[in-house]
This record gives sequence, structure tokens and C-alpha cells, in this order.
Amino acid sequence: MRQVDLRSDTVTQPTPEMREAMYRAEVGDDVYGEDPTVRRLEEAAAAKLGFESALFVASGTMGNLVALLTQTGRGDEVFLEAESHIYYYEVGGIAALAGATPRLIPGDWGIITPESLRKYCRSTNIHYPNPALLCLENTHNRGGGAVYTPSQTAALMGCARELGLRVHIDGARIFNAAVACGCDVRELVRGADTVQFCLSKGLGAPMGSVVVGSRELIERARKWRKMVGGGFRQIGIMAAAGLVALEKTVNRLAEDHQLARQLAVGLAEIPFIRIQPERVQTNIIVFEVDEARISVESLLARLQEAGIKANSSGGPAVRFVTHKDIQAADIDYVLRTIAAIPVAE
Amino acid sequence: MRQVDLRSDTVTQPTPEMREAMYRAEVGDDVYGEDPTVRRLEEAAAAKLGFESALFVASGTMGNLVALLTQTGRGDEVFLEAESHIYYYEVGGIAALAGATPRLIPGDWGIITPESLRKYCRSTNIHYPNPALLCLENTHNRGGGAVYTPSQTAALMGCARELGLRVHIDGARIFNAAVACGCDVRELVRGADTVQFCLSKGLGAPMGSVVVGSRELIERARKWRKMVGGGFRQIGIMAAAGLVALEKTVNRLAEDHQLARQLAVGLAEIPFIRIQPERVQTNIIVFEVDEARISVESLLARLQEAGIKANSSGGPAVRFVTHKDIQAADIDYVLRTIAAIPVAE
Amino acid sequence: MRQVDLRSDTVTQPTPEMREAMYRAEVGDDVYGEDPTVRRLEEAAAAKLGFESALFVASGTMGNLVALLTQTGRGDEVFLEAESHIYYYEVGGIAALAGATPRLIPGDWGIITPESLRKYCRSTNIHYPNPALLCLENTHNRGGGAVYTPSQTAALMGCARELGLRVHIDGARIFNAAVACGCDVRELVRGADTVQFCLSKGLGAPMGSVVVGSRELIERARKWRKMVGGGFRQIGIMAAAGLVALEKTVNRLAEDHQLARQLAVGLAEIPFIRIQPERVQTNIIVFEVDEARISVESLLARLQEAGIKANSSGGPAVRFVTHKDIQAADIDYVLRTIAAIPVAE
Amino acid sequence: MRQVDLRSDTVTQPTPEMREAMYRAEVGDDVYGEDPTVRRLEEAAAAKLGFESALFVASGTMGNLVALLTQTGRGDEVFLEAESHIYYYEVGGIAALAGATPRLIPGDWGIITPESLRKYCRSTNIHYPNPALLCLENTHNRGGGAVYTPSQTAALMGCARELGLRVHIDGARIFNAAVACGCDVRELVRGADTVQFCLSKGLGAPMGSVVVGSRELIERARKWRKMVGGGFRQIGIMAAAGLVALEKTVNRLAEDHQLARQLAVGLAEIPFIRIQPERVQTNIIVFEVDEARISVESLLARLQEAGIKANSSGGPAVRFVTHKDIQAADIDYVLRTIAAIPVAE
Repeated sequence: MRQVDLRSDTVTQPTPEMREAMYRAEVGDDVYGEDPTVRRLEEAAAAKLGFESALFVASGTMGNLVALLTQTGRGDEVFLEAESHIYYYEVGGIAALAGATPRLIPGDWGIITPESLRKYCRSTNIHYPNPALLCLENTHNRGGGAVYTPSQTAALMGCARELGLRVHIDGARIFNAAVACGCDVRELVRGADTVQFCLSKGLGAPMGSVVVGSRELIERARKWRKMVGGGFRQIGIMAAAGLVALEKTVNRLAEDHQLARQLAVGLAEIPFIRIQPERVQTNIIVFEVDEARISVESLLARLQEAGIKANSSGGPAVRFVTHKDIQAADIDYVLRTIAAIPVAE
Repeated sequence: MRQVDLRSDTVTQPTPEMREAMYRAEVGDDVYGEDPTVRRLEEAAAAKLGFESALFVASGTMGNLVALLTQTGRGDEVFLEAESHIYYYEVGGIAALAGATPRLIPGDWGIITPESLRKYCRSTNIHYPNPALLCLENTHNRGGGAVYTPSQTAALMGCARELGLRVHIDGARIFNAAVACGCDVRELVRGADTVQFCLSKGLGAPMGSVVVGSRELIERARKWRKMVGGGFRQIGIMAAAGLVALEKTVNRLAEDHQLARQLAVGLAEIPFIRIQPERVQTNIIVFEVDEARISVESLLARLQEAGIKANSSGGPAVRFVTHKDIQAADIDYVLRTIAAIPVAE
Repeated sequence: MRQVDLRSDTVTQPTPEMREAMYRAEVGDDVYGEDPTVRRLEEAAAAKLGFESALFVASGTMGNLVALLTQTGRGDEVFLEAESHIYYYEVGGIAALAGATPRLIPGDWGIITPESLRKYCRSTNIHYPNPALLCLENTHNRGGGAVYTPSQTAALMGCARELGLRVHIDGARIFNAAVACGCDVRELVRGADTVQFCLSKGLGAPMGSVVVGSRELIERARKWRKMVGGGFRQIGIMAAAGLVALEKTVNRLAEDHQLARQLAVGLAEIPFIRIQPERVQTNIIVFEVDEARISVESLLARLQEAGIKANSSGGPAVRFVTHKDIQAADIDYVLRTIAAIPVAE
Repeated sequence: MRQVDLRSDTVTQPTPEMREAMYRAEVGDDVYGEDPTVRRLEEAAAAKLGFESALFVASGTMGNLVALLTQTGRGDEVFLEAESHIYYYEVGGIAALAGATPRLIPGDWGIITPESLRKYCRSTNIHYPNPALLCLENTHNRGGGAVYTPSQTAALMGCARELGLRVHIDGARIFNAAVACGCDVRELVRGADTVQFCLSKGLGAPMGSVVVGSRELIERARKWRKMVGGGFRQIGIMAAAGLVALEKTVNRLAEDHQLARQLAVGLAEIPFIRIQPERVQTNIIVFEVDEARISVESLLARLQEAGIKANSSGGPAVRFVTHKDIQAADIDYVLRTIAAIPVAE
């Protein structure tokens, strides 16, 4: 039976080229700063995003955590969209480990505005934590892969500066955003203090993320990474795959987006599904099920039986994600399968 | 000039009876558990709220903090109304000191429902913090002194139990709620794990709050209080005033409520003020200023010139609070003063 | 039966003058900075210790905690004598709340030297926390009330500066140290960033401590105090007693020291007790019991039967503390009582 | 020039067999629990150490941190030898992230006894943190690779149980200990709650450690690992190398020990070096330099010129570590080089 895994773009298998690169990778002890492949990856990543320096980390969560630990003091306030990944999916590490208070700003499909930021950022007062950091998530996962454009980003950064806030971009899928905007990724991160992006999602590497920033911030981040246990030894093996991802796979994200839109348009024709296809800007599709006719649970079970995996996204919402191991034929198969599911009238 | 301080019910002066009680208080070293007046206060407070045990603390913030430290583990999730005092005004101690993640539930004038709690409490998942504690604030400060009734409280507690959550009540003004509901305070706290209430707000004591709970929880809370620096010595002095407050002043809260309503009704007639007087259930009045006609800043400045103090409550909102040092004549004076302020047409 | 409480100098009863001062104290809401008596106390304390600014806090533990929260970042390293009060008796708040790592330096009767500080302060390295703060305890509680002289203090501060460390003095009993050295208290704290001293120990006030420092540090400390729940309302009541303590009782500490030495000399003659009377510099006496002849437990029980209270100090050690409610006749009584205890040969 | 890297056993290059295994590794998304190679490694590790369950982590520091987060509550007390790796080299994460207080027990070359544990574990008291966890480091890094024997371990565990403490073993080099004792590794960890061991040190894998424990503890540890950012995707690549390490390289540790002893015996003959060769039980050699004749800095510089790398170990101490990339000829070379260094008479 055909297997279609739409749960996440994290499920991809490494490409043969990545396997080769890992096999041949020159490595050293990265805690001593002696892994040449890690260095190459960090330099390439910094250059690609237009920053001075970079740090290879185990995951997007570690990248965000380390950026937060570096840029907030105990008890500071961090501004986040209300459904942002850092707040929603990262186990509360922001409070538990960084001791920072999340200040939640409701967004529109995950997108916040300078006006809302200004409203939520209170004046200094003995009753309030110190406002310290704005985190932007681009693309926004729970916002259905929504994109901040360069001008939206620039406006928010300007506002953050006025308010005395640093800016971290959770760019786990920042290259998806760049592809969707048709711009260089640098236009989406210029002026930020730190950016985290993942090698392991759409880019297809088996593991890892990178945090970029100024030399001084990245040196401090390196120490926080050590504290959380992210000091690796001969990790150049994985960095080698990351380098392939960074250099070779960015361009193919456009295919994922096209398939996602195709899928969304198809879903819009299915009576028990509610979706706004024009909202699908990148490789994430969030839609709602008419639960009077079929429950999310039943839908996912039917898909599972047909070899299709997907995740619920809370309440009546379901999420599909396209990626390099999904082909056009898979999309047809998914649409045909869903259309054939018997539901209540 | 007449002085009218409507900023908060925390500004009250101790009564002569409190002064006397403090002067004569029998005291001992409370860290050794040997202050007889503190014991009397703790016993009286526990009895009055229907709990086994009680702990005298320095402030409402300390009471809430200690209750949280006692009932959450590092990294747990705490459910709070989005504008609750613990989240909004307590300097982020919940994250900075307890390491707990606030999960914010938007309420209606501060009041949440079992439905919304259920919606925000997610199933167990490796990505989410462990749901641990529901905090209810009664009356709700930023909700304009709104009241949870006994049946609302009971429904929320039932829901919390089903979800496996403990319940803490931030009852800084719980006696105001009891008076507004015309019920015994026990009906508002029955079934909670811990309750904090203030001796220093409407009750008029110069300092202090009490946390009540089971003997076992309060013993643990005592240790957390020590850690945050709330282990006092001959604090029976202050407990003596607290005892007077607890025994003598609860009944007079009805007067504060009546004056508050009078004030609200009067404000409703002033053209540049927006207020729903029927929302004023206790001693807090929140209203909005038509900023096209006068800014909050100007209004507060005009009031200040007339000897009237009040606080802004964010954006166009202003807060007035009535208390034992406010008389009916003060209300008239405030209304007359506001009515006479020249504003833009 | 005569009652002699040698457990601690925290057990003292307020004097009639303190009672009067509390009764008449002018008060206001200190969270708004409007309590005139608190202000007077803070100003008097700052002046007395030679600092710009001061903050009234609930306890020595709160003073130390707030000083640490103010002067360390999450994860910093704090240098402490191995048996210092902050490390030994403050419930681990340094790690639990401040997230700071205690770096323990073994002292001689609690006294450390610049050489030992230099040895324990490591060079910067990715594996080590950032060295941030030196805490000195003067007098040193578990060191038997041992005193740092002005020159010892100055040498340690000089060394700390070279190492890039801030300095906090846990001066819970700093006036005892000043009296023992025959110097102005300012000579013992000059050059420190913050100092905490207690009003409630030898000085006899029912409650409270004060943290002094620069205006900027104290403003930040004020916010941390709020977070831990130490924001009080009409606390001028207690500040009034603190003012009496500060102004009137410092001189009488010499009597406590004299009685302590008398007690030590007497104890030295008792066969089953080991003590170096010349080590007793202030109001704390630590001695060891020959447990082959009588256990600490039995000794304390016999004393208790005779109305004498004392604390064990770990292992074979017992601690006596003299204070304003102990008279010469009490010392005689204690010595006679101990001499009469039957022990094994 | 010959290159001899004695800094640490972390610097080893992966073997060709590891390269092959990584190249062919079957992988999946480990956050979804779907990486077959990770599962095989975790099962093999659990079986080898005699535990129910295991968790692959990025580093020894992450393994220790996650074990601590799992087994301590905020503010608990953790018992550690005074120079243990967790306290000395892990950036203070124990306090900064876990909020636990280190209680330091001085050991003899890193080895503590039940007597000393009993002495440092205080009775329950409102002033002390809650005693929670004993950590043993076997072999002990700063103790010069010293070994806890099975009987020493068993005695300490028995004592910990009596005191109500859990036990974590930092077994970064536990297989070195087993080889030195000539026992099955299970005899060294039986009865512990959790054990961490490294695949990347003597075992030669490029990255990773494993934490073993009961199914229930490991499930909780998995969530803490997610929070610190150790949730990996297709990490089976690295697990494949770890499996080779676990299955193939344990036996060769005996060679490292033999070379270490050879090196120690040779060093003992060099006049400006102080070493007790009989103390060298495993693959770590710690010796002191007679700094009157040559400074540590100069010695390390001379070695560096000769292609020999080593680390200072604080003060006059230097550390050498043998590992799979060190041969007998390297030892000769090192000894000859040192013997030839000109020093002051």
C-alpha cells in the first residue's frame, strides 16, 4: 500500500548525497572547536543569513531555548504570538529553564502587528517583568504556515527597537518564507539579533538547527548550549548532511508549496472540510472537519488505514505538511481517499 | 482641600482598635512557631474559611507565590485568566521563581467557564508542560471587581478535578465576593486546595495576607515562605491588627460596595465616560474615558489637582476603588469634580 | 522557674519604647513609596552604613535573597564560605530561586582569605559558570560569631575587585562585628556593593532587615522584593520599631559580648565541655560536648527541664546566643545548672 | 611530526566500522519514536546495564541534567563529591536549570564513603532544602580516574536508601570502571535509579550518551530531554555508531588502562613531576608539576611544540588521558619528550 506521511516535514529520510557526505565527513572534537565540518556549516549558515556568526544545535527547540537564555535575564518578559511554537510546543522551557514570562499577543493566523505589540508592551512598573525580547515565528506553524513578509518583519523590528526589545526569529521554516515571498532570506531576518532555522524540516537533513547572530551573542549562546547538554563531539557527521541541506535543497521548497496548494484546493471541494486555500502560503495546510459529519479522530483513523498519516491540530483542526518525500501522485491519492470516506449526511 | 484616595483599598490607615491591639499584642519568635498572636490569627483564618490550617504571609503576592511553589513542580502548567493579578501584576514570579508556565484563558470581565478551561487544558503530550493548577481570582481585580458565585466556583472546581488539576483561589478580596453574593465565604472556597486572602485591602489591616489549606500543604508552604524570606520573628504585632480586621471589618464591606455603585451610577451620566454600572459588583469601578475629548492622563491630572487620586488601568481605562477611608461625601465630591472638568466637544 | 532562652538573639521581646513608637507611627502605603516611617528608617540605615540608599525587608533571608537576585544573572557563580548562613540555612533559595551556583570556600571559623578566594575563582571557561559575586558573613554565625576586621574585609574586597566580582555582605550581625572591632560600622562595609543587616537580632526589633547599596541597585532590589512578596503596605508600624533599634540599641551589644565571654570562660571549666573561650568574639558561643559522657540531646533536655533553651549546632556542637533579654544572673544560673548535670565518668 | 592528543578520550575519530554503520543506518523520526536504530541502541544499552529502559542523549552533560531534572524537584538538595564533574564542569546547570542545591562532600581522590554521606545529610528542618539525590561519578574524572568498586557502590547505595535518597550514577566512564574492577558493569550500577554513560569517550563513538533507568523514569526523562532541546529526528545515524561502540569497543579499554599505567610509571621517574602511579586505575593520569622548576603553562607549551596536547587540571596539576587513538609508541614519545625538557635546577 502507498504510504503518505503528512504529519510533518520532520519525517524525511536523508538523501543519498547526504549519506555520502556524512560517510566522508572530516570530523574533530567540536567542544574544543575543532570539527572542520561544523565550522564550515556554521560559516555557510552565517553567510547565508547575513550574520557574523553561527552555532550548530541539536534541534529547533534547542536553538530557540539557547537564544532565549542568551538574550533574557531571569524574570524578563518575552513577547510571543499566542499560538507560537515556543509557547505552545516547547514544553514550557521558556519559564521552567529561562525563568522568562511569556507575554502572549493574539495574531491573525499567527501574524501580529506593530500595533498589537505596542498594546501588549507595558510601560516600566514595579509590578511588571522587564520587557526584553520579541520572538517572531516565520513561517508560523499553528498559523497554517503563514508568512511574515520583509516589510511586515521590518515594521515589527522597528517597533521592537523603539520599545527597547531585542528580536529573535524562530525561523524553523524561514526558507519556506523566503521562497513564498520570492526574496532572499536575508531580507526576512535583517536587523534581528538572533535567528534560528532548522536543517531537518523542509531542508531534509536528519538532524539539527543553526542559530545565527553577532559574534558576541553566539559566543554566549555557545556556553548556554553547553549547559543544556548540546556540546557535541565529532558532530561533523551530522553537520555534513546539514551542509548538503543548506546548499542543495532550498530551491526545492517551491515544489512543496505547490503541492500544498494543490492539496488545499482539492480539500476545498470536499463537503465536510472547511478550508481557505488562499491561506495556504507554504507547505502547511490546516483545515477544519465538520464534526457533525465525521470526527477528527475517525478521519485520522480512516486515513491511517489507507497508509496516510496526519496530525490533529487541536479541536476540529487537522494539519497536513508537504515535504521532499511527498510527490504529486501522493496528493491525488490523499484527495481520492478523503473523498471516498463515508460520512453522515 | 479634601483628599480622596481612590487608587486602591490598600491605602487605608489602621483603625484605633488595630493600633490598640498591636500595642498590646503578645508576641514570640514565629520562626520557632512561638508567636501566640500569629497562632490565633492563623487558627481564626483557617476556621473562618473552613480549612485545617493557615499561614500568615507578608502580602497577597507572597501568598500566591507560596501557594504556587507548594503546588507546582518545576515546569508545570498553571491555568489563569488572561488578565489575572498573578499573571499581570506579580512581576512574573510564576515563571521566574516557580518555573511554571502560565496558560492564559480569556475571560468575560475576568470570569472564565468550565468550557473554556476544558478547551485550554490539552491532553498529555511530550510537547506540552504538565497541567497542574487552576488559579481563580475572586473578586477579579482587572475584571472590575467581578465576582465568581458559589455555583460558578463549584462548577469550575468540578471541571478542574476531572482534568486532574489542583485549585488555588487568589481571594485577595474574597470577602468582598462573599458580601456581594450574600453567602458565607466558605461557600466560595469549598473544595479548593489553597486560598489566599488579604487582611490589608478592604479589611483595612496595615499588612498581611493568609494562605489556608490542608495541614500538609500548609506545612510545605511554610518552608517555601522561609525560602522567599517570609519567616518573621515577633510578627504577632501585625497579626494583632489582622485579627481585628478579620473579626470586625468584614461586615462593613457592604458600604464600600454601595458607594462604588453610587459612584458608577453617577459616572454613567457624565458624557465623556463609558461605564456599565450594573457591572460594578463590589468595590472596584473600571470605566473608559472618551479620549477624543480628554486623555486619561489629563483626567488624572485634573483629579489630582482637586485632591483626588486614581490609577489608570491600561489604554483608555481608569480604576476607582472604594474602601473604609472613603465616605459618601467623597463620592459626591468626586462626581462633582469630574462633571466640572472642561473637555473637548 | 527562671527562663533563659539562649537559642538565638532573634527571640527578644520589643522594648516599651518600641511599643510606643509602633503605636504612634505615621504610616502610608509603602508599595506607593508613601510610608513616612519606612522612609525615615531607610534613610537612617543608609546614612549609618554610608550608602546612598536602603530597602526595608522582612528578614535577613529576604535581604540576602534580594541582594543575590539583584546582583547575579541566571546561572552565575556566587562565592561563599562553606558554612555560611546563605548556603547552610536559607533553604537553598540561592539555587532554587536565583539559579546561582554556590562556590564554597572552606574558612577558618568561617573566615576566608584572599588566597583562598583566588584559588577557588577559576578562569573563564565554557565549562564553568560565570563568577559574579562574593558574599561575606560578618559576624559569621556557624563560625561561632567570628569577626572580619576592617583590614580583612578590605583585603577581600580588593581581591574580589581584581577578580571582577561584586561583593555582598551578609551583615545580619554587622553591628556586633563593629562593636567587637571597636570601629564605626562603615569601616566594615566600605566598598561593598550591598550589605544586609538585621534589626531583629541583637538590635531587638520585632521584625525586619535592611539592604543598603547604591541608588540604582536598591531600585532594582525593590522590584525583586516585590516579586518575592515583600511589598508591604502600612509597614511603617514595624519600621518604627526598627528605627528605635537602629538608634538606641547598638551600644548595648557590648553587654551581650561581655556576657558571652563570661559564659564561655565558665563553660571552659566544665569537664565534659570543649571550648576555646578566646574564640568567643561576639554574642555567639559554640562549644562541643564530650559525647562519651553526655549526648547533645541529653544535655539539651536537662537544660530544657531547668528552663534553659539552646540549639544543637550539628554533631557534638551546641550554640548559645546572648541578647538583650539575658542578664548576668542568667549566665550564673546556666553555668550552675550545667555544672550540676550528672554525666558518665 | 607525530601528533599525540592526551587532552581527553573525547577526541577520538570514528572507526571505519562506525562509518559503515552510520552510512547504512535505518532511520526514522525519533521524536515520534520511529527510529529503529535508536530503539536498538536503547534496548541494547538497557540490557547491558541491567535496566528496563534507556534514552539516547546528546552528551554526558545532557544525560546528567535530564537525570537530575527527572529526579529532583525545584529546590531539592543533591549530594555530590566536591570535585565531581556535574558540579565542576557542567556550567552550573544543576542550579541554573534544575534549581537544585549542590551539597558537596569532600572525597579521597573523588571517592566518598557512607560515613561522609551520613555526616553531610542533615535531618529535615525548615532551614534546609529537601535531601533528594546522591550522584556518584564512576570513574571519577578529577579524582584521576579513580574507581568505585562494586562493594563501595553497594555500601553507598544502601546508605542513600536509609537516608531516603535516590541514586544517579554519572558513569560517563563506567565501562572503564568495570574493566578496572574486572566485573560486569551491572555489578557497578545495580540498585541505582538512573545511570548515564558515554558512547563518545573511551568507547569511541562520535557523539552521544545513554541514560538508563526504570520505564517510568525514562518516560519522564524523555520529556525533560525534549525541553532542553534534545529531541532529535533521524538520529539513528549517530545511534548506529553508538551501537558499534557499545558492542565492539568495551574490551579494548584494558589497553588504554595499560598505556596509562605505563605512562604514569614513566612520569614518576621524571624529577620535576610528582605522581603516585599506583593511583592510576583507569585511563586518566593526573600529576603535579614542581612549579619551582617549570610552570604548568611552560610544560604544556613545550609539549604543544612537540605535537603533544594536554590540559591543565587546576593549579600545578596536569591531566593526560589515553584512548583508542593513542598507541604504545606515543607513550614512549611523550615520556622522551618530557624527559628532554630543560627545567630549572
